[in-house]
Amino acid sequence: MPGRFLSSVLIKYKGRKILMDCGEGTQVSMRVLKWGFKSLDIICISHGHGDHIFGLPGLISTLANSGKRNPLTIIGPQGIGSVVKGLLVAMPYIPYDIYIIEDPKLPIGIKMGPEGTDLVTASSINDSNLDMIISTLELEHSCPCIGYSLFIPRRPRFDVEKAILNKVPKEIWKRLQYGESLSYGGKLYKPDMVLGEARKGIKLSYITDTRPIDDIVDFIRESDLFICEGTYGDEEDLPKAIENKHMTFSEAGRLAFKAEVKELLLTHFSPTMEDPYLYEKDILDIFPNTIIGYDGFVKILQYR
Amino acid sequence: MPGRFLSSVLIKYKGRKILMDCGEGTQVSMRVLKWGFKSLDIICISHGHGDHIFGLPGLISTLANSGKRNPLTIIGPQGIGSVVKGLLVAMPYIPYDIYIIEDPKLPIGIKMGPEGTDLVTASSINDSNLDMIISTLELEHSCPCIGYSLFIPRRPRFDVEKAILNKVPKEIWKRLQYGESLSYGGKLYKPDMVLGEARKGIKLSYITDTRPIDDIVDFIRESDLFICEGTYGDEEDLPKAIENKHMTFSEAGRLAFKAEVKELLLTHFSPTMEDPYLYEKDILDIFPNTIIGYDGFVKILQYR
Repeated sequence: MPGRFLSSVLIKYKGRKILMDCGEGTQVSMRVLKWGFKSLDIICISHGHGDHIFGLPGLISTLANSGKRNPLTIIGPQGIGSVVKGLLVAMPYIPYDIYIIEDPKLPIGIKMGPEGTDLVTASSINDSNLDMIISTLELEHSCPCIGYSLFIPRRPRFDVEKAILNKVPKEIWKRLQYGESLSYGGKLYKPDMVLGEARKGIKLSYITDTRPIDDIVDFIRESDLFICEGTYGDEEDLPKAIENKHMTFSEAGRLAFKAEVKELLLTHFSPTMEDPYLYEKDILDIFPNTIIGYDGFVKILQYR
Repeated sequence: MPGRFLSSVLIKYKGRKILMDCGEGTQVSMRVLKWGFKSLDIICISHGHGDHIFGLPGLISTLANSGKRNPLTIIGPQGIGSVVKGLLVAMPYIPYDIYIIEDPKLPIGIKMGPEGTDLVTASSINDSNLDMIISTLELEHSCPCIGYSLFIPRRPRFDVEKAILNKVPKEIWKRLQYGESLSYGGKLYKPDMVLGEARKGIKLSYITDTRPIDDIVDFIRESDLFICEGTYGDEEDLPKAIENKHMTFSEAGRLAFKAEVKELLLTHFSPTMEDPYLYEKDILDIFPNTIIGYDGFVKILQYR
């Protein structure tokens, strides 16, 4: 719509980028942000409906023109591979590899470096050696659709007293601090011999398009930012939300409340809803820390 | 680009619509115009590069949502069929037929009615029984690319004196006026027995992306509006224009001058050219009746 682009989320971390959904015009919004294109390594697609994917061909071309040469990984639900392949028929040559991950059942570990992003199997959702862990959840929409949670683990603090108490030689402090277990002078040392207690990471979750199924609550629990569809603001549109497998503002708000998230960002407004701010008061009653999304909204998430 | 969408042309005539090229975001510009979607019957594609076609999936979906049920015809160069087919893989169901015409060598006659548009073989480029005639020209770009000319023929005036002089019975005046030849009372009557001299129609031509090959001059001759690419404004970019198979402003201006068109509308500016108006003075020296295109530009063409 003029003045309201389709919903998508661009995440910048450690100099690399991850995009969530890519409707027509997403690359225009990216140009407005001026964060660049070249360092986009991962695109997470919720589902294969046009408003979430029709920006892919243009963006993939623009990435090529931006000088991108390292691989791009596209994650999506069952069937996303053939959809992407179709969209790319028009493109004769793409100067970087595109990997497709369909419906990943296990969390994906992310290691970010200056030249790109590596994807590995995440051994644990709290593995602090990884830069990020991407998990997915099957949602309930009119086609295969998945939600995403992005978790940035936080390393425990280095605890000098504990290291001394455990008689850890100074020479291996750093290696233990960064998660290595090693034998030194005939003795086995483990990271927890020098590390303080676990610290909370940063969690962002992205849920669209779906009915508010129970599984979502656990999946998004204690997110720092819960980005959620709010297709309809008016409670009278609940029958439409049920029929079209979407949510109302208050359904999203109740999920946010139950999951004790820090903040809720509503997005994916129906084109029939001209002014989502009309329903702001109602949603604030259900979940006070709610933002009604708007084009170009930017937020910095920090460790608590 | 923010503030400058990709080039395309929307033509409204007799309640129906024809679109020329459809890059990402074209449907957003169409929404801004508020001319509606449902009556779009023909899309003319110059070539299969992303900036001319990546808006197709979104537009085709929007047409479906707008209630369109009559056929859509997509005209384009050799190979456009497989490109469009690919782009549509992501769309499970389109509630109207899509016909593809690849590289039409002969002019296409257009008959417009309240419910849609019929395409017929145009027997003559001046057939005044047709609402419009679409012709194409092979251009010189880095892939198969065609230019378009849209011609709206104008019926000659009915000449009462001539009809009386030729002893045409009044009963068949109207039928002859509308182009029928018929036998009446044992005698053959032809339209030119009641019609005045030929009158000039309206001609619009659309040429992008290409080098300024000689064939273009005849093809666009005496256009009322010649819409032409001007990828580079600066004459110093001529080597780039040659390498990338595009034109500079002055090359477009010289085509306009040679072909004696009424007006030149420059479009398809390189993203590297921030302000096309910088080169306005130079192009006006070559062809004074030049408009530097901008988003949302609308022009009404009338019979002279």
